Amino acid sequence: MTTGLITLTTDFGYRDPFVGTMKGVILGINPHARIVDLTHGIPAQDLMAAALALGASTPFFPEGTVHVGVVDPGVGSERRALAIESAGQFFVGPDNGIFTLALKGKEIGEMVELSNDYYHIKPTSKTFHGRDIFAPVAAHLSLGTSHKKMGNPVKEIEQLPWPEVTKDGRTIQGEVVYIDGFGNLITNIHEHNLKTIPTEHVGVSLGDLAISGLTPSYSHGQKGYIALINSWGLLEISLFKRNAQLSCGAKIGKKVTIRDRRTAP
Amino acid sequence: MTTGLITLTTDFGYRDPFVGTMKGVILGINPHARIVDLTHGIPAQDLMAAALALGASTPFFPEGTVHVGVVDPGVGSERRALAIESAGQFFVGPDNGIFTLALKGKEIGEMVELSNDYYHIKPTSKTFHGRDIFAPVAAHLSLGTSHKKMGNPVKEIEQLPWPEVTKDGRTIQGEVVYIDGFGNLITNIHEHNLKTIPTEHVGVSLGDLAISGLTPSYSHGQKGYIALINSWGLLEISLFKRNAQLSCGAKIGKKVTIRDRRTAP
Amino acid sequence: MTTGLITLTTDFGYRDPFVGTMKGVILGINPHARIVDLTHGIPAQDLMAAALALGASTPFFPEGTVHVGVVDPGVGSERRALAIESAGQFFVGPDNGIFTLALKGKEIGEMVELSNDYYHIKPTSKTFHGRDIFAPVAAHLSLGTSHKKMGNPVKEIEQLPWPEVTKDGRTIQGEVVYIDGFGNLITNIHEHNLKTIPTEHVGVSLGDLAISGLTPSYSHGQKGYIALINSWGLLEISLFKRNAQLSCGAKIGKKVTIRDRRTAP
Repeated sequence: MTTGLITLTTDFGYRDPFVGTMKGVILGINPHARIVDLTHGIPAQDLMAAALALGASTPFFPEGTVHVGVVDPGVGSERRALAIESAGQFFVGPDNGIFTLALKGKEIGEMVELSNDYYHIKPTSKTFHGRDIFAPVAAHLSLGTSHKKMGNPVKEIEQLPWPEVTKDGRTIQGEVVYIDGFGNLITNIHEHNLKTIPTEHVGVSLGDLAISGLTPSYSHGQKGYIALINSWGLLEISLFKRNAQLSCGAKIGKKVTIRDRRTAP
Repeated sequence: MTTGLITLTTDFGYRDPFVGTMKGVILGINPHARIVDLTHGIPAQDLMAAALALGASTPFFPEGTVHVGVVDPGVGSERRALAIESAGQFFVGPDNGIFTLALKGKEIGEMVELSNDYYHIKPTSKTFHGRDIFAPVAAHLSLGTSHKKMGNPVKEIEQLPWPEVTKDGRTIQGEVVYIDGFGNLITNIHEHNLKTIPTEHVGVSLGDLAISGLTPSYSHGQKGYIALINSWGLLEISLFKRNAQLSCGAKIGKKVTIRDRRTAP
Repeated sequence: MTTGLITLTTDFGYRDPFVGTMKGVILGINPHARIVDLTHGIPAQDLMAAALALGASTPFFPEGTVHVGVVDPGVGSERRALAIESAGQFFVGPDNGIFTLALKGKEIGEMVELSNDYYHIKPTSKTFHGRDIFAPVAAHLSLGTSHKKMGNPVKEIEQLPWPEVTKDGRTIQGEVVYIDGFGNLITNIHEHNLKTIPTEHVGVSLGDLAISGLTPSYSHGQKGYIALINSWGLLEISLFKRNAQLSCGAKIGKKVTIRDRRTAP
């Protein structure tokens, strides 16, 4: 079951006509496709950011949506091109882990390597599979063509290494995994990791920063840094009406420690 | 009367998947909605820029259009969420003045506080009402559901403080209210403020800059700074094929003085 | 024959509501138009970049598509506004060479100066023909109105000066004509210029950089700079997972020399 709805997520940025070209290919095959840009502002080659963006937004799309993800430094190499059915949606992109978080915990259906070049643009470039393979495949999927016709089944796909949250006696250890355009520092610590600590007793530290208690929303942080559970369900460090990242200099991978302030200093 | 047309204006930028997520929510409720990005490049928390962008562009959309504006530093606080009918269009966003210029001088219909959570995504986050309240409300409006079902009527809404143009004897005083992506300095001085001065006699000063006469378009300014009435009807200071803001360093709020050069030195 | 499909290519950027306003005008005239952003990230007034973006992507759109290009430093001057039919597609924009590469080598049909203001927004500004002339004209074209009704035929249009590739004894001389968002340096040297040299014997030099042989794709360049034929058929210099432009500092216009390494040192 398809709806004609196709989303695009890339690191192509907004300066070049690459995304527009993909849309031309799609609309040439399915003139009734409706195309949504998830984002094209993924930092170049940043698979973790792409995986998070797809994981956070694809659940909000209706059944039948085709999601195309192109962050693809390995284009033209031996890395495979994939179409995956999962929970009534389709995922089309390189086999490099880009869909790891979108598929996590979901029912996975048939996975196919896109080896049937009937569904590709020819001549097929070795540098722009977004235009020549992923766009036409997505357009055909949006018309209702089964991905099983598009190549051979595969059983294992690449997984993105995801930094796990660890517990060490009285503390929980995580790290910054994403920094949004406002400069908010988003961590891999999920609200379920914190469920045993009342919000007012959660102590958060990141480098020299120490924050006491979680606040419910950004507008409670007028006095400096705050920590909150964001709309993705993740612990986030923010600075009211300012850019936390620019202010404190933290980068992706920066360690974050949680303490229960009732029991730890 | 609705047309299925929804516009989005935010300060979310183009790096993150926040806007794309809102589109998923909308299309899950109204698969036939047509969504237009007005801009997502509003500087973070800059309500004045958002109000100007909406004021300049919403009149060009057809009757029945639903305009969503999300520049919302107060999300999660007690600030209200609104849906407003005005001159056959709908405006959905926080009660913080974001629609002040879009509504200015227009007939205002029913205004509603979006208190009926039947029309919201649940669980409703405290940090992303764009996704959980404004997007689904806009989608339901685009389907023809009356906003009167979505909450209680309100009589007064927040107004953005708008710097007024003043007259002081022989001079007119205004200020820079917006700087566009080309670096053009757009002021709050409207062409009707200047109607008693022939264009060739308008003297414009901004800091050390002095410009004599208005020119009809950008291509008349090959010799340096020019002043013109722009496509929003506002006085604008520009530099031919260059960036006036980078060149002269003026910022939002910089004072601009107009003289009638026939009567003032 | 039209399809309701309209593309937009501008240097308006993503900060301002200018593009969104054009979409409002289009959808007010043709509510069923489907609008695709080719890119709005063309550097300000950079006609060469706009011409390349349009040349590389318009061939991927279906017959009947209307392509609007607005990089228009001469707006409001005597430069003409045009609608051009070519190979079943339409091109709408200023007469400044913006469509030079999109039309190159194609069959050209009727070309019209957009002098009939019945199809324009009134009052017509002198600074924003994108909103007041090109958007409404594109919308009417997308409804099937003939461009011959929109003005008088013209026989000659402006051509963008395009730097030609030259051959000088044993070497081929070209230059950098475009730098994409990844920092890849794209030259005017087409793969057909290189057809007499086996790929492994192509020597590329750009300033101090010397590259031996062409590689098939980005993922073959782990050891430094590489040269390849890109998805536009042009010679491109790249740096694996890094930004070649930031690393080597080359700019548009930088000379590139090709040698056949079998016969030249």
